[in-house]
Amino acid sequence: MPSEPLLPLELIDKCVGSKIWVLMNGGKEFVGKLLGFDDYVNMVLTDVTEIDPIEGKTQLVKILLNGNNICMMIPGGDGEEVWEE
Amino acid sequence: MPSEPLLPLELIDKCVGSKIWVLMNGGKEFVGKLLGFDDYVNMVLTDVTEIDPIEGKTQLVKILLNGNNICMMIPGGDGEEVWEE
Amino acid sequence: MPSEPLLPLELIDKCVGSKIWVLMNGGKEFVGKLLGFDDYVNMVLTDVTEIDPIEGKTQLVKILLNGNNICMMIPGGDGEEVWEE
Amino acid sequence: MPSEPLLPLELIDKCVGSKIWVLMNGGKEFVGKLLGFDDYVNMVLTDVTEIDPIEGKTQLVKILLNGNNICMMIPGGDGEEVWEE
Amino acid sequence: MPSEPLLPLELIDKCVGSKIWVLMNGGKEFVGKLLGFDDYVNMVLTDVTEIDPIEGKTQLVKILLNGNNICMMIPGGDGEEVWEE
Amino acid sequence: MPSEPLLPLELIDKCVGSKIWVLMNGGKEFVGKLLGFDDYVNMVLTDVTEIDPIEGKTQLVKILLNGNNICMMIPGGDGEEVWEE
Repeated sequence: MPSEPLLPLELIDKCVGSKIWVLMNGGKEFVGKLLGFDDYVNMVLTDVTEIDPIEGKTQLVKILLNGNNICMMIPGGDGEEVWEE
Repeated sequence: MPSEPLLPLELIDKCVGSKIWVLMNGGKEFVGKLLGFDDYVNMVLTDVTEIDPIEGKTQLVKILLNGNNICMMIPGGDGEEVWEE
Repeated sequence: MPSEPLLPLELIDKCVGSKIWVLMNGGKEFVGKLLGFDDYVNMVLTDVTEIDPIEGKTQLVKILLNGNNICMMIPGGDGEEVWEE
Repeated sequence: MPSEPLLPLELIDKCVGSKIWVLMNGGKEFVGKLLGFDDYVNMVLTDVTEIDPIEGKTQLVKILLNGNNICMMIPGGDGEEVWEE
Repeated sequence: MPSEPLLPLELIDKCVGSKIWVLMNGGKEFVGKLLGFDDYVNMVLTDVTEIDPIEGKTQLVKILLNGNNICMMIPGGDGEEVWEE
Repeated sequence: MPSEPLLPLELIDKCVGSKIWVLMNGGKEFVGKLLGFDDYVNMVLTDVTEIDPIEGKTQLVKILLNGNNICMMIPGGDGEEVWEE
């Protein structure tokens, strides 16, 4: 079944309120619930686990991620859950 | 036969629905079907193989790639298929 | 209780006058009071502690941080205080 | 003979249909025929030789290069041919 | 005494004609008099001391710094002078 | 004698037709005559000497430098000549 075209901001919009997995330039990773975003792909996450290749896992209440430095976003926290249409 | 001029967004548009190969800053590579893109060259891929120089291959359902950090895109997954006019 | 959607600039705006923790590309960190910001996420901080992985802590009166190179912002100085609704 | 002022996009425009040499951030180099470009200096090249400091030379049919990560462009493939006015 | 909100470009504007300390991505630092700036935080400095972690100090008459690569600006050359209200 | 305010693009404009010294992210340097530039600080240089920390000096006829990756520009080729008002 051919997948429907999907614009980047549409994909992000579908993820608001759900868990996402964000990989930054420089290697940091974040898993958390997406509260909001803007056209520059800046993102607000809550209930966040920060995964640092060196410092391990840290829990954070609420963070802003700068779109400039986001490399990749995967819906569903670890890439499967949200998209099992 | 002289090739026709081709604008960057035209090239990406021709790839929607087809397999592409994307190389990021920092060395990560992705092969997957392009679902959509925007003027900032942000891209949505599905049925994705992530090729990491260290961690090897990972399969992902759907991802967003930030245009800021895309270095190069090659139509056709590994550079030949789509463009055998 | 499902959290309310929250746009990036709204989150920053809520932090004006409060302590925030900013992590830059390249590893520098800053904790200080946010005096102002703009659409490019440039930020003015005062009463600033600069935390450098190598050079340790430095006190600074007032600084401008370039949004381009901000990786992450955490409200509340070390991630808890501001957001204990 | 004093050279005529030349705007960046004018220079690129003059190269459409000709061979150019592009150096990216991170060290990759590409020599190929320029098919098109846009205001963000994104470029489409065809008949491309990719020169990687480690992996050597690779031939590619058609590629998109992200202007964000282009460091330098030299008309004429290896810097002489196009500009022998 | 609660500090007044202060926008990034307001802060820079207050520094025109005064000494500032600018830290770039990649570690270079510059101390000099700010002659002008624009919305992209590009800056013109004069009577400049360049402080390179490896090459030490160099005096330069006049320079342009690209806002893209400015990490941080501290009013007052070494962080105290300008802001002793 | 207090120096006159000078906007970044004004400074570059004054250098058109003169020799400038450009330092890029990543360490490459270029000395050449500025033929033109645009609002993104993209620059066209001619009669260019490329100074690479590893590969030494290379002569190039004409090049485009991407403003994104320009760190600093010094009027006058090696920082003194143009500005001896």
